[in-house]
Amino acid sequence: MALTHFTRSGDAHMVDVGDKAATRRRAVAEGWIRMEPETLSLIEQGGHGKGDVLGIARVAGIMGAKRTADLVPLCHPLSLTKVAIDLECRPGENAVRCRASVETRGQTGVEMEALCAVQVSLLTIYDMCKAVDRGMSMTDIRLVEKSGGRSGHWVRDRETSSSDS
Amino acid sequence: MALTHFTRSGDAHMVDVGDKAATRRRAVAEGWIRMEPETLSLIEQGGHGKGDVLGIARVAGIMGAKRTADLVPLCHPLSLTKVAIDLECRPGENAVRCRASVETRGQTGVEMEALCAVQVSLLTIYDMCKAVDRGMSMTDIRLVEKSGGRSGHWVRDRETSSSDS
Amino acid sequence: MALTHFTRSGDAHMVDVGDKAATRRRAVAEGWIRMEPETLSLIEQGGHGKGDVLGIARVAGIMGAKRTADLVPLCHPLSLTKVAIDLECRPGENAVRCRASVETRGQTGVEMEALCAVQVSLLTIYDMCKAVDRGMSMTDIRLVEKSGGRSGHWVRDRETSSSDS
Amino acid sequence: MALTHFTRSGDAHMVDVGDKAATRRRAVAEGWIRMEPETLSLIEQGGHGKGDVLGIARVAGIMGAKRTADLVPLCHPLSLTKVAIDLECRPGENAVRCRASVETRGQTGVEMEALCAVQVSLLTIYDMCKAVDRGMSMTDIRLVEKSGGRSGHWVRDRETSSSDS
Amino acid sequence: MALTHFTRSGDAHMVDVGDKAATRRRAVAEGWIRMEPETLSLIEQGGHGKGDVLGIARVAGIMGAKRTADLVPLCHPLSLTKVAIDLECRPGENAVRCRASVETRGQTGVEMEALCAVQVSLLTIYDMCKAVDRGMSMTDIRLVEKSGGRSGHWVRDRETSSSDS
Amino acid sequence: MALTHFTRSGDAHMVDVGDKAATRRRAVAEGWIRMEPETLSLIEQGGHGKGDVLGIARVAGIMGAKRTADLVPLCHPLSLTKVAIDLECRPGENAVRCRASVETRGQTGVEMEALCAVQVSLLTIYDMCKAVDRGMSMTDIRLVEKSGGRSGHWVRDRETSSSDS
Repeated sequence: MALTHFTRSGDAHMVDVGDKAATRRRAVAEGWIRMEPETLSLIEQGGHGKGDVLGIARVAGIMGAKRTADLVPLCHPLSLTKVAIDLECRPGENAVRCRASVETRGQTGVEMEALCAVQVSLLTIYDMCKAVDRGMSMTDIRLVEKSGGRSGHWVRDRETSSSDS
Repeated sequence: MALTHFTRSGDAHMVDVGDKAATRRRAVAEGWIRMEPETLSLIEQGGHGKGDVLGIARVAGIMGAKRTADLVPLCHPLSLTKVAIDLECRPGENAVRCRASVETRGQTGVEMEALCAVQVSLLTIYDMCKAVDRGMSMTDIRLVEKSGGRSGHWVRDRETSSSDS
Repeated sequence: MALTHFTRSGDAHMVDVGDKAATRRRAVAEGWIRMEPETLSLIEQGGHGKGDVLGIARVAGIMGAKRTADLVPLCHPLSLTKVAIDLECRPGENAVRCRASVETRGQTGVEMEALCAVQVSLLTIYDMCKAVDRGMSMTDIRLVEKSGGRSGHWVRDRETSSSDS
Repeated sequence: MALTHFTRSGDAHMVDVGDKAATRRRAVAEGWIRMEPETLSLIEQGGHGKGDVLGIARVAGIMGAKRTADLVPLCHPLSLTKVAIDLECRPGENAVRCRASVETRGQTGVEMEALCAVQVSLLTIYDMCKAVDRGMSMTDIRLVEKSGGRSGHWVRDRETSSSDS
Repeated sequence: MALTHFTRSGDAHMVDVGDKAATRRRAVAEGWIRMEPETLSLIEQGGHGKGDVLGIARVAGIMGAKRTADLVPLCHPLSLTKVAIDLECRPGENAVRCRASVETRGQTGVEMEALCAVQVSLLTIYDMCKAVDRGMSMTDIRLVEKSGGRSGHWVRDRETSSSDS
Repeated sequence: MALTHFTRSGDAHMVDVGDKAATRRRAVAEGWIRMEPETLSLIEQGGHGKGDVLGIARVAGIMGAKRTADLVPLCHPLSLTKVAIDLECRPGENAVRCRASVETRGQTGVEMEALCAVQVSLLTIYDMCKAVDRGMSMTDIRLVEKSGGRSGHWVRDRETSSSDS
């Protein structure tokens, strides 16, 4: 077994996808940012006109998806046909959960774009709340589902997903 | 208590830092990417000429620090005077740990740059290993230490840092 | 009637265009920058070897078209097959008129790229002339024509185009 | 009189500002996007949970201010200490008015950043509403006020500002 | 004979490629950076754990290929299907040779992407070695081979390639 | 002797410049693009209204200087106070010579920005002329002069500069 992003001599390269079919490809990723209960309350109040933290984090995540190939060195540049970000306050977990769905019609998958969208969304929440809660933690950022392409339909095993009750 | 990134009427803005002193500011952030033991072995072998995953992730993290203000909407653009990324394989935790130190001489802190560097480093590891391990998870991405500026020296309470034995 | 860039719950998303046909799409946009007659004279002299304001604004507009999806949050990233910028001094109106034509073969239209090209061209003229005329105004930036895609061929009603005598 | 962005031989250059004082510099710019009354109503309803057009346009404008030197060829790269965007529905004018305030402590002014923020905000409103109103027009984008630096305090003459009743 | 990047009136434009076939297109470019023998020795030792100059230059070149249309004004934005960078120490020539291969399935060629990758790779080597050798020179950066598209298969005449013994 | 861009353990980092003085720093770089005599004639005619190749290359070079820290992984982001590009047709050498002067007031030098400006200028000339002359070669790209900072005033030894008669 070897890592495909390296040649036999160990040099990094952007893998040749020229012979892959241009199919409908979709990926869903998720992640959490954990915080003090008071911080989560401030975010929830934002929905009532005091500063829409989640609205801004959603926009940042969508824009972040478009910057993936600029950030991840060996990632192929891609046209995206859809990006949606779902952000949900989870008081029982003292967390905001972010879920990103990304689609393309192309020769490579979009799991990197979905993960990047989650990361930038969570990072943006951190930025807006850091003055009141420096100890927040971004966690369990991972792929949930992936379809299209040679590797078929992949779904994360529910059992391993302990954070998501 | 209110979020400083919003005006009284709830509108987002880039906070005025024009009256803050331009001092030496430093931040350290960390995070983990958890994976199958076999995946970690492949990364460790990379140090022996089969593809330097960590070397590429380090470069990506350094470049990612420089893109922070492009990604995080309300983040101030900053000149950085130092960026260092430490990546360590942790076989006992089936994880790679990333730690980023960032410094500036300026009017705002660099915790966002340190966190962004960690995220882009971990994301790059994910990208290079995803063909063999789609279930990897990026976790416990958080600020470790921060100094300079009005808020003084902040250090994360060791106790809460359970992932770091 | 509702805005398509939002889900039913009011969340912004990048609209799914995956099922749209990849057709030849074209858009033309225009706009004016109004200025003092002396400023316009300086620009006109530029054609005679004293500083080619319009040549630089044209290049900036073409490059700006390529940055549209970086700037407009919900805009799809696109490959462009053609960008042309026409800049014309209009002494009777104390203005420079900019007209941008953009084409693609793709799943979404290019009106945003055409409008963005016009804005960046005009902004670049402002930049180069601001030292002599701070009061310039960029105005009547709008779509002129659009073809390709489901919405068919759209042409701006001549009557409403009062600035263009 | 000559344009400072060109050398005596007519070549464009980024003007030397190395000897200018690093002072507090501020600029305010404004602009309008005119639309059908029904479109404006949709935007106003957005404040009530149906899609926050103005919130997204505000974020886009702030991010746009940070990209100014990437877009305008001869513009100096700058650190910004403050960016604020005010967006106001003006039913009497069938328009949304955008006003951007930008500040820096530096060697050059920030009028380009303020104008760029206005343009990107308006462009983002256009993008989100174009499916219902293709004929919108962005207009009267101009500098309102500028202070700091050698040229002193400049305020646009109220009389010429006919759009702003 | 005329330059295709200009209209008949001499205005620059991004050439219309909308009617070109989307075929497999490939380009190979090369270039050298010449240096003191001691500098080359330091680079060669890097492979043995003292700092992997070539590994970082390779990543920078791959990322540089993706930024080509951002840098070269009239260049079409492109999806790339493959990028590979070969870097070789050439003690007999006191140089490192860089060779970049780029592929796409698209309507325009990728020679600009290949050349840009070479330039950014060499520039990155310069950056990392400049503290010990300020006099390095980047030289003979040129297209080696190009295939796909109307112009057919082009190969640089071996005779003219004197640097490559 | 060791490369400063690596730690003792061989890891790349962005070198700490926080203790360096913020002084006036200046760098001059140069480079050539060699071509067929007919291609050079076409460029020279461009000055007479048939397409201003050098004007566009100059703008691209200035913009390229601003992108240096985006392209070169370990390069510090910098504010630039001046960028000037001189392009000269040299019929005796069948070449265009590019010379870039860059200045900053800061903690690191600007030789990378000057070299990057030269490279992007030459690359842009290549792009605009490639349809008529695929065999052009970019050569002798190197630092000419550097001042400011600890290393003092460095000037390239005239003798080694054989291309520059």
